[in-house]
Amino acid sequence: MASPLVYHRGPDFPDLLKGLVRDLKFVFPTTDEVFILSCSGSGAMEAGIVNCLSKGDRVLVVSAGQFGQKWVDVCKAYGLSTEVLEFPWGESADPLRLREALKKDPDIRAVLATQSETSTGVLHNIEAMGEMVREADALFLVDGVSSVVAHALPTADWGVDIAVTASQKGLMVPPGLAVITMSARAREAASKSDLPRAYLDLDKYRTSYSEGRGPATLPVTLMKGLRAALDMIIEQGMESIWRRHTIQAESVRSAANALGLSCFAKSPSSAVTSIALPDEIDGLILMETLRTKYGVVVGGGLGPLRGRMIRISNLGYIDHLDVLTAISALEMGLRHLGWAFDPGAGVAAAEVVLVGGEF
Amino acid sequence: MASPLVYHRGPDFPDLLKGLVRDLKFVFPTTDEVFILSCSGSGAMEAGIVNCLSKGDRVLVVSAGQFGQKWVDVCKAYGLSTEVLEFPWGESADPLRLREALKKDPDIRAVLATQSETSTGVLHNIEAMGEMVREADALFLVDGVSSVVAHALPTADWGVDIAVTASQKGLMVPPGLAVITMSARAREAASKSDLPRAYLDLDKYRTSYSEGRGPATLPVTLMKGLRAALDMIIEQGMESIWRRHTIQAESVRSAANALGLSCFAKSPSSAVTSIALPDEIDGLILMETLRTKYGVVVGGGLGPLRGRMIRISNLGYIDHLDVLTAISALEMGLRHLGWAFDPGAGVAAAEVVLVGGEF
Repeated sequence: MASPLVYHRGPDFPDLLKGLVRDLKFVFPTTDEVFILSCSGSGAMEAGIVNCLSKGDRVLVVSAGQFGQKWVDVCKAYGLSTEVLEFPWGESADPLRLREALKKDPDIRAVLATQSETSTGVLHNIEAMGEMVREADALFLVDGVSSVVAHALPTADWGVDIAVTASQKGLMVPPGLAVITMSARAREAASKSDLPRAYLDLDKYRTSYSEGRGPATLPVTLMKGLRAALDMIIEQGMESIWRRHTIQAESVRSAANALGLSCFAKSPSSAVTSIALPDEIDGLILMETLRTKYGVVVGGGLGPLRGRMIRISNLGYIDHLDVLTAISALEMGLRHLGWAFDPGAGVAAAEVVLVGGEF
Repeated sequence: MASPLVYHRGPDFPDLLKGLVRDLKFVFPTTDEVFILSCSGSGAMEAGIVNCLSKGDRVLVVSAGQFGQKWVDVCKAYGLSTEVLEFPWGESADPLRLREALKKDPDIRAVLATQSETSTGVLHNIEAMGEMVREADALFLVDGVSSVVAHALPTADWGVDIAVTASQKGLMVPPGLAVITMSARAREAASKSDLPRAYLDLDKYRTSYSEGRGPATLPVTLMKGLRAALDMIIEQGMESIWRRHTIQAESVRSAANALGLSCFAKSPSSAVTSIALPDEIDGLILMETLRTKYGVVVGGGLGPLRGRMIRISNLGYIDHLDVLTAISALEMGLRHLGWAFDPGAGVAAAEVVLVGGEF
């Protein structure tokens, strides 16, 4: 990213753009169209909605946390008739209840869901939901912002019409760039959609991409960063990267249990581990201790969970020792707050998982 | 930008954000609200429209080139009743014709204009237009993407309600970050506006800024770059920076004339100089020669002017020797194409301007 700027209308740009689009397909994986947008993940979620839907369309949002709620907010902002299939925070959406909801309301044109709900650390079953959505002949829009790279999101196999992600998560690049996939069905829907759009109009992207450029200026430094990240990703291979995320998240859960703590999510994401705190431990003080004493930043509980939870991520550019470092900091932080356990118990449990159970 | 990432929800972020917003006001200058968006300049233009206007509103776009047309496209995408006051490419909009148009059509709710029309190198008289717009009690939205920093855009004095710019122009930062100002009148209009918006909703920005964060993830590396750029800008002072742009652009025009070429824009911008080419010179071949033989990239003619023009920018991070370097390359490029002039004539003419006429 520190190399000289690529001119976004110059002769080097088309190859950069084309290579990124090609290699991003490998990441989801997808065979759909892929567009790189100059915005955050929220912008890409909105792009999915404004390109495929029309005013007054009935949509169903599967929500079990803060990012499910974000879909709801955007749908309502665009005047969609928005139903919410809500699950308690910490639970994974039950696909059978989705089937039921779709049967009861055959006018639903689209279902919007979240793969990894960052606010609770829950993984939702996109594959099973996709089956239900396809039965109902609706469109399926999936927020993969914090899941893609940690989890597979094979759009064709799972019937996902729009999937979005963003640079600063699994793609290991600073924020400012988002990615959206678009199936043939979504494209067909887009041709009939009447929601207003200009900056996020994917038709314009398609046309200008065919000329090797963006419809507006694209964030070229971030694209150079993405090029470097995709080179690393391709070298490692997706199977290996997914496995690393699985093992690391499992190691964090194992450490939490060894420290006498419990994990909040019933179906945990491999991108982030939410650890419920006992009443004796104030999550805000614990986070502040980790940050100021050890330079380790962990997430906190959001909304109703504020102060009651910490969240430890292993998404993207994280190796096994980074995970163990975070667990060491957690152990010392918990000791400062008076929590009792054998020193090193968390690290020991994590190490066992990280070496594949053989110690 | 290469320093460790600032966490966009962490304790260091609010000061970074607050400092940028404060110092960006110095650049326009403006006393209005300022928001930093994660998008390109086109996204910020759209933010101005969707926040202040309502479906079916009558608006008037002053257009004399490609970027005037961009306003038109966005207005139409959002169902605004869009009138265009068109001037020939290369001409600066006549404010008296704007007054006339506003008198004839008292339902116009907003006027949208471009300060520096990059496609033609023309500077439009925003100050005079602002007076006409205020007389008509309409809102005034100005695209300052390629003018801010090169030219003053004092929003309060000139009656500008929305001004937008982007990181990769005068602000000297890579693309991916845009800036928008919002007057009290614009904010009042926003409270009644009914266009759908979510990602570009400035109300959400206002609320989250008051908590020291963005409504979505902001592009923190670009913000660090902007911090460095604003430090340079403040050290130099806006008067000195505006003067530098004026002198450099004048030196390029003087060089062009000394080489027997003429400048295309009647009221030239200080950010970019458009040089009309004689029939003997193919602009595309000239650009390719400059790029491949000398590593100098200049703009070309857009739309109807393709191949008939080159455009030389001195916007942002450009010193006097950069300008002379470009002129030297232009001289050699023109020689390769058989154009006759005294070698060094362009550089000589430019140097005289750059040292203030005293040689």
